[in-house]
Amino acid sequence: MFKLKIIVVDRTRADFLRAGETFYLNRLKRYTDLSWMEVKPVKMNKGTPEAEVRSKEAGAIVKRFHPRDYLVALDRTGTAYDSEGFAGHLEKLSFSRDRLAFIIGGPLGLSGDLLKQANEVFSLSKLTLTHEMIRLFLLEQLYRAFTIIHHEKYHK
Amino acid sequence: MFKLKIIVVDRTRADFLRAGETFYLNRLKRYTDLSWMEVKPVKMNKGTPEAEVRSKEAGAIVKRFHPRDYLVALDRTGTAYDSEGFAGHLEKLSFSRDRLAFIIGGPLGLSGDLLKQANEVFSLSKLTLTHEMIRLFLLEQLYRAFTIIHHEKYHK
Repeated sequence: MFKLKIIVVDRTRADFLRAGETFYLNRLKRYTDLSWMEVKPVKMNKGTPEAEVRSKEAGAIVKRFHPRDYLVALDRTGTAYDSEGFAGHLEKLSFSRDRLAFIIGGPLGLSGDLLKQANEVFSLSKLTLTHEMIRLFLLEQLYRAFTIIHHEKYHK
Repeated sequence: MFKLKIIVVDRTRADFLRAGETFYLNRLKRYTDLSWMEVKPVKMNKGTPEAEVRSKEAGAIVKRFHPRDYLVALDRTGTAYDSEGFAGHLEKLSFSRDRLAFIIGGPLGLSGDLLKQANEVFSLSKLTLTHEMIRLFLLEQLYRAFTIIHHEKYHK
């Protein structure tokens, strides 16, 4: 199975979401070598163009890439899977790739250049979610995918 | 603005999700008269057909309906909106309806009959989520929708 890396912008501030992350990160460790990387957000002053913030944050994100990382950027506009499809896709990737990196942007999302650079863009929902909620949602789906791949019961 | 009712099957067991619900329920109270109703889940024995569980739970759910409720059932197969579309839809409904009820099933989802009885079926994502995560996701989207309707900044 591939090494899994999740790169996020900023630390998670809401206590209940941080607790949820810990819950799923612990479960995921059983299935894969997982690293969680938090990149510093760019301080926004009034008048800082949003594109500039996204571009600076992208600069910090790419530093965390490994040359062999298969890059999956999360964005509302990306490809939507159902859970079985997502699990099947991950399993297929595991045959050809040894490193997978998921990238979740900050409050302003990811830069267009980063979305282009990614091997694929994955959408959890058409709805806009906070960048902190997306983390919990992704972790739950990764856990669900591993239970599907391993033909295990999903533990609630 | 309409009265809002959210009917769910079973209480929320994960502490971090219950904390998240409380967080958003408090925020939502500023915008609308909201009631949160938990319906008892049906005990499953080995061999109980899933359809029977769903149908019994539906029986408990419909008892919570008010004759004027506009019923929105949540199901993966329903209509997907983006957040602006969802907010616009809620705002439009508020002109003609004074009561809105969202219905979230238990681990096995909602019965087909209940989905048919609903005025509409709404999908948060193509992905399967736990019935407990859906609650948090819906509450966050309702809060987001009210900030959009009221032209307010989204507070993180």
